[in-house]
Amino acid sequence: MSSFTEEQEALVLKSWGLMKKDAGDLGLKLFLRIFEIAPSVKKLFSFLSGGGGDAGEVPLSQNPKLKAHAKTVFVMTCQAAVELRKAGKAVGRGESSLKKLGATHFKYGITDAHFEVTRYALLETIKEAVPEEMWNEEMKDAWGVAYDHLVAAIKSEMHDNEFKET
Amino acid sequence: MSSFTEEQEALVLKSWGLMKKDAGDLGLKLFLRIFEIAPSVKKLFSFLSGGGGDAGEVPLSQNPKLKAHAKTVFVMTCQAAVELRKAGKAVGRGESSLKKLGATHFKYGITDAHFEVTRYALLETIKEAVPEEMWNEEMKDAWGVAYDHLVAAIKSEMHDNEFKET
Repeated sequence: MSSFTEEQEALVLKSWGLMKKDAGDLGLKLFLRIFEIAPSVKKLFSFLSGGGGDAGEVPLSQNPKLKAHAKTVFVMTCQAAVELRKAGKAVGRGESSLKKLGATHFKYGITDAHFEVTRYALLETIKEAVPEEMWNEEMKDAWGVAYDHLVAAIKSEMHDNEFKET
Repeated sequence: MSSFTEEQEALVLKSWGLMKKDAGDLGLKLFLRIFEIAPSVKKLFSFLSGGGGDAGEVPLSQNPKLKAHAKTVFVMTCQAAVELRKAGKAVGRGESSLKKLGATHFKYGITDAHFEVTRYALLETIKEAVPEEMWNEEMKDAWGVAYDHLVAAIKSEMHDNEFKET
């Protein structure tokens, strides 16, 4: 995995500064894009599969639980990128601690393909969120590398779960 | 799964008529899009993973084996859509018989997520291949439904392999 350079950190900081205030909308866009590419991912979310009684009656984009979840995920992902160099590694906190994320992703059988679809959807979401002239290959790589660090950290915790089971 | 209507068949025929002569290029675009969304899919192709000696020296888009394979897959997929109503079901032939496709996709552990990424990439490829004014929700649905029939047929053969193993 590529290391995350100072220049890449600057690009992440600059774009996050612009996106932060719209994190709710952008998180929702991220998830809608993931579901567009891979609709079966919806089945992984109990609050989307009719278990909650009122699911199915409101469109996805209006589902309050999805909106809240999507914002949390988007902010956490971007925050991990923003803090990556300072912390020396991808970090989470509270409900989004890497240990919890590892356990959840392990429990739901998340695969490389899922992480990759999310990476693609994240980069597309950021591309559309920032001013056109700000988006370029360097910006794409910066977010891509930061995401790869986060995923590597989550996968490492997932493997710990694997060893616990055997 | 939705049934494939006469109107949808007409949309598929019309667009396939325009795309057919570029099937090689379009097949390659389809695979490059799949690899862009899910790079780990490359690992499933022995001719991309350095096994062939010269792999890795030429860019993906110039790899002759990928080009040949991509064209076969694209033509087969579109042909199955074109013949879907006449045949009453998705059909393959020769090296692309459903039995062989079922066995290969089973062997490589292809999942729902893979089929979904391919669906998304296929629709994006067709969207960019046809004249802008020809692409609309109906055209998208027509190709999407035809693809779903093909995947259902392949999955059914995959399950037959599953039963053989147990």
